[in-house]
Amino acid sequence: MNNASETSVAVIGLGLMGRSLAGAFLAAGHTNTVWNRTPAKAEGLVAQGARLAPTVGDALRASAITILCVTDYPAVRELFGTNDVDGTTLLNLTSGDSAQARDTARWFEQRGARYLDGAIMAVPQTIGTPDAMILHSGPQADFNAHRETLRALGTVSYLGADHGLAALYDVAGLTMMWSVLNAWLQGTAMLRTAGVDAATFAPFAQMMAAGVATWLPGYAEQIDSGSYPAEVAALETDARSMAHLIEECEALGVNAQLPKLFKALADRSIAAGHGGEQYPVLIEEFAKPHSG
Amino acid sequence: MNNASETSVAVIGLGLMGRSLAGAFLAAGHTNTVWNRTPAKAEGLVAQGARLAPTVGDALRASAITILCVTDYPAVRELFGTNDVDGTTLLNLTSGDSAQARDTARWFEQRGARYLDGAIMAVPQTIGTPDAMILHSGPQADFNAHRETLRALGTVSYLGADHGLAALYDVAGLTMMWSVLNAWLQGTAMLRTAGVDAATFAPFAQMMAAGVATWLPGYAEQIDSGSYPAEVAALETDARSMAHLIEECEALGVNAQLPKLFKALADRSIAAGHGGEQYPVLIEEFAKPHSG
Ligand SMILES: NC(=O)c1ccc[n+]([C@@H]2O[C@H](COP(=O)([O-])OP(=O)(O)OC[C@H]3O[C@@H](n4cnc5c(N)ncnc54)[C@H](OP(=O)(O)O)[C@@H]3O)[C@@H](O)[C@H]2O)c1
Ligand SMILES: NC(=O)c1ccc[n+]([C@@H]2O[C@H](COP(=O)([O-])OP(=O)(O)OC[C@H]3O[C@@H](n4cnc5c(N)ncnc54)[C@H](OP(=O)(O)O)[C@@H]3O)[C@@H](O)[C@H]2O)c1
Repeated sequence: MNNASETSVAVIGLGLMGRSLAGAFLAAGHTNTVWNRTPAKAEGLVAQGARLAPTVGDALRASAITILCVTDYPAVRELFGTNDVDGTTLLNLTSGDSAQARDTARWFEQRGARYLDGAIMAVPQTIGTPDAMILHSGPQADFNAHRETLRALGTVSYLGADHGLAALYDVAGLTMMWSVLNAWLQGTAMLRTAGVDAATFAPFAQMMAAGVATWLPGYAEQIDSGSYPAEVAALETDARSMAHLIEECEALGVNAQLPKLFKALADRSIAAGHGGEQYPVLIEEFAKPHSG
Repeated sequence: MNNASETSVAVIGLGLMGRSLAGAFLAAGHTNTVWNRTPAKAEGLVAQGARLAPTVGDALRASAITILCVTDYPAVRELFGTNDVDGTTLLNLTSGDSAQARDTARWFEQRGARYLDGAIMAVPQTIGTPDAMILHSGPQADFNAHRETLRALGTVSYLGADHGLAALYDVAGLTMMWSVLNAWLQGTAMLRTAGVDAATFAPFAQMMAAGVATWLPGYAEQIDSGSYPAEVAALETDARSMAHLIEECEALGVNAQLPKLFKALADRSIAAGHGGEQYPVLIEEFAKPHSG
């Protein structure tokens, strides 16, 4: 239990990210209690007005909500193994997978705590600006109760009651990130063989990525309805153009692994009888493990 | 030689795409001559005011610029093997690779023609709207001379004098396209295990792709300068998070090939000593063939 003011907040874990979170709460005028295993990392925040709690338990009791941001979930368990968490509200922004998030939610809830899980889709430098996207999952009432406080961190959003959702969106977002970056590197490598520099190609790549991304909501309807009419192009046509891309990469002497994987996925779907359907039918390949 | 009006244009090849190109020229009020191996495909265009040329040579002589849009480059060679092209201007919008574009440019130029190569980054349905992006490469003066005519097709852009550029941007653009689509399918497959439908995830994926794309111009500066300070994150950190993504995919029972390829590329770069540098250093892996 705690009798802290509604907008008081504690941050536990003052690494690069935790310090940035605590700084954003201070800047927004929230009463901010901090704790770190290595207390020296709190010095800058204390100079700005944060209160350094002597123990984790003290930080918990001082605040309406306690944010956790340490290296990983095992560190969270280690920190809270013996603390009384009954009646407290925790938001765990430590990165992890969806199973860890769900397990940790149960672990805290069984001991009487309210628990939200979250994921930070941002670097410490952008925390406190709208560019920082923070995802939350768990009981909606608990998110709603602290939404105003959390808005100090950036653009906050709520995904649903399943505690695993923030972690899932997080890894799905990372997949988008690496895919865009790798595709751009692939294209840049190809264009450089013709003397085109990376800065010249980048705006084109940016426009392509943003343009293709606008198709996703429409394509999603095909997936949700399980029907993939070839309105724009058939998978077979796509696979032929992938074959050309592979040949071009090989002729230019650049890495062809990415287009080869694209084609392997499309070929498997064609072999399963989907050559006349549209690209999103590939969800059937993505939705199952690949053996071999 | 021809003595056609400055904005007269011929379209040779009246498949799905060629008919759409000719229709856009007609709609924009250009004198439009058409030719197709199978003349029946010209009927609709003739009804709208196009003139059906009896021969390829007639179409060439009737027009200030002749657009080619047939299945592939061998079909172009077959069509023009015996025709006199001296003094004509050709724009080849047939899809092909950069070597074919460069070879075909030489082949036409040696016979006295002006030659531009192009690539259509659009489906027939959007031709004639700003959404249709058409890329051009070859002598800038020839592009400039016909730019106004070509604008009837959509958003036209000029890439440079090297005839291979349009084909290279084309395949690079396709790589962006499949990468964004595959990443989205990967994320969708993951989220569906938690009961999230594709339509719910799509706007998030769209925002991620568009957001990451805005980093490309900045990252391009690292590539052009050949220096990759880890301002945001080190490749080693990225590789660890890729490992988590792979584990999450495997735990969820979804395909993990895409994240595995991402990690293999990053691991090779780390093994080459780049673990402390930033993601774009991977260009060194993309710029060379992968053996094995
Ligand atoms: N930095 C980013 O760009 C970024 C972006 C998105 C998400 N994240 C996530 O945010 C979390 C923190 O990242 P960070 O960049 O702040 O990492 P960091 O700078 O390495 O800080 C790690 C923090 O965890 C604490 N810690 C680790 N093990 C502990 C234990 N067993 N008991 C108590 N405290 C422990 C450390 O305390 P000591 O100071 O005592 O060592 C430190 O406060 C990670 O899950 C990370 O994935 C980071
Ligand atoms: N459709 C698209 O979405 C799209 C998008 C971007 C780029 N493209 C490119 O545009 C080009 C044409 O595509 P399309 O969709 O219009 O294809 P299509 O509907 O199959 O039409 C092919 C055209 O090529 C002609 N042709 C083929 N071989 C020939 C030969 N040896 N001699 C004379 N004519 C020949 C055909 O004449 P017949 O009528 O006599 O068979 C027909 O006019 C392709 O390079 C394609 O990659 C298409």
